Amino acid sequence: MIDLDELLNRPSAWLTVEKESDIVVSSRIRLARNLRAFHFPGWGGEEACSQVWATLKPILTDVKAMPGCLSMEMNDINQLDKMVLFERHLISRELSEKGKGSGLVVALDEQMSVMVNEEDHLRIQVINPGLELIEAWERIDALDSEIEARVDYAYDPRLGYLTACPSNVGTGMRASVMVHVPALVLLEEISPIIKGLGKIGLAVRGLGGEGSDASGNMFQISNQITLGEEEMQVVGNLHEIVREIVEHEKNARKRLMQKKGIIVRDHVGRAYGILSNAHILSSKDALDMISGLRLGVDLGLLPGLTPSVLDELTLLIRPGHLQKIETKLLKVRERDVSRAKLVRSKLADIAK
Amino acid sequence: MIDLDELLNRPSAWLTVEKESDIVVSSRIRLARNLRAFHFPGWGGEEACSQVWATLKPILTDVKAMPGCLSMEMNDINQLDKMVLFERHLISRELSEKGKGSGLVVALDEQMSVMVNEEDHLRIQVINPGLELIEAWERIDALDSEIEARVDYAYDPRLGYLTACPSNVGTGMRASVMVHVPALVLLEEISPIIKGLGKIGLAVRGLGGEGSDASGNMFQISNQITLGEEEMQVVGNLHEIVREIVEHEKNARKRLMQKKGIIVRDHVGRAYGILSNAHILSSKDALDMISGLRLGVDLGLLPGLTPSVLDELTLLIRPGHLQKIETKLLKVRERDVSRAKLVRSKLADIAK
Repeated sequence: MIDLDELLNRPSAWLTVEKESDIVVSSRIRLARNLRAFHFPGWGGEEACSQVWATLKPILTDVKAMPGCLSMEMNDINQLDKMVLFERHLISRELSEKGKGSGLVVALDEQMSVMVNEEDHLRIQVINPGLELIEAWERIDALDSEIEARVDYAYDPRLGYLTACPSNVGTGMRASVMVHVPALVLLEEISPIIKGLGKIGLAVRGLGGEGSDASGNMFQISNQITLGEEEMQVVGNLHEIVREIVEHEKNARKRLMQKKGIIVRDHVGRAYGILSNAHILSSKDALDMISGLRLGVDLGLLPGLTPSVLDELTLLIRPGHLQKIETKLLKVRERDVSRAKLVRSKLADIAK
Repeated sequence: MIDLDELLNRPSAWLTVEKESDIVVSSRIRLARNLRAFHFPGWGGEEACSQVWATLKPILTDVKAMPGCLSMEMNDINQLDKMVLFERHLISRELSEKGKGSGLVVALDEQMSVMVNEEDHLRIQVINPGLELIEAWERIDALDSEIEARVDYAYDPRLGYLTACPSNVGTGMRASVMVHVPALVLLEEISPIIKGLGKIGLAVRGLGGEGSDASGNMFQISNQITLGEEEMQVVGNLHEIVREIVEHEKNARKRLMQKKGIIVRDHVGRAYGILSNAHILSSKDALDMISGLRLGVDLGLLPGLTPSVLDELTLLIRPGHLQKIETKLLKVRERDVSRAKLVRSKLADIAK
């Protein structure tokens, strides 16, 4: 049986799935659920949380939809592993600050996971590579139904699922898609699109989720409404909109290559050259230049590279992962040196 | 017999001589001489100039010190070839603007040359790779003596050689050395050195000579005084001072590697990465990054490269040479694209 250390010392398994294009990096759905018999985690205190954890852990590690998963309580996880889990979208900052009574159950491929006693008793999540929202919905719906058959969810016939924060009441669902749209950014066509998405009830955030900026030309698009709409409707709607954005981005790339082909080649080439040869790399610079490589891969300018290698690199260069690889805490400059070394060696391996 | 086109389609032969280090790129001496029987070129008009050219050409192409040389009159050279000759330090801007009656006689290795009817009737020049001022003086002195045995120079027993500009009267000699001092620039120790050189009668200029800035961390150091000092004294003095500057630069490099080794490696690595992969390269960027490579070669960080390859590259990326290679006039952006292509292919050849 694999342990947490082994899990965290390899990149998330689902990242290695090959995708046709790198415009849609991943699709993610999470459901907020609570048990009727307990106060919400924020009200119950450690005692109540421990009871919830004790109730849910045996069920979650036993459900058929998520076989052979790992379970861990927050007080058993060290700071570095928490950072790594956070960077893999498996725990939130909020959960990482909790201790006894809060925990994580995660499938070995890291596509399915459940946070216990974060803001809600359960935060069920499915991540898929590429644009696979419908599939993600089907998987999470099956997992949710299996859990629901064994516990009594806090559910109101009129409102739907009850959640700690009113913004989640109803479906308790947040569906989000990470898109990489460098051409729309380069042609300065992204702002009106973001504004338009806001008007139809979608939120747009940076790579790191809420409050983060769009490093590496990555944007996370998600639904905000959880009341008054069926899940499949929300998911289908988001799916269609993302497909439209993909078309916009493809179109922008075509125009970019026609009008400014040499500038794009230069941009991609310099990104590759610097990443392959730098000895100091900040996180922001690395993400921006990996964005250049993603564009290059999609345009066929970098034959040896694949989207999945870049997804893996995007993950491995983050502070938690770097420190996990080096097995110690590092200062900012040390991380920049370690990041450059890692990127150089990955790209050199591929060039061989 | 080689013709001008063949000559200009290969890099200057003396550039291919391997040097131990790249701190001193080249040593150059020129002598200003005039014929007693004629007005200075600026006063004589085309008629007189043509007489001078007719007098000097057979002598210069016949001297033993410069066997098998090419001679050409300015009105027979097209604009592009003039640019190339200028970039090779074989003609000055002033000579390139002249026509009939002005000309160039140049040895096939381009180390020895004579401009006829530039500011003076003769501007004799010797260029050597590395720090070879004494050797350059011996060679130019031999060439000058051979010419002097066959013509009557304008010479005053009290003043020395008479020249069109009073600043050259006396020895008529300008000795100069091109040095590459990136560590002194990076550590901000170059300014006091330049000031100090000024105080002892030496001039400091950029790569392109008078009025140019120090692109690529290259500086040209030359004597200003031509009166009251023996040539060997001036040359020996400059030689000693350049040796001191080389020691300063070596010392600065040592300190730089000790204190900021990773920054130097990053600087060198990025320069190599960008030059190997960019598709648009301005002249200034290219020179600055080639400076990074020179430093890398001298510090043993770039095993495949040699100083002579970088000297050659420094020459070939200049506008005239680029256009000569492409056999047509190019706009600025076209030159930047052509320059990037040339640099990429040269570095790729070496990496093989």
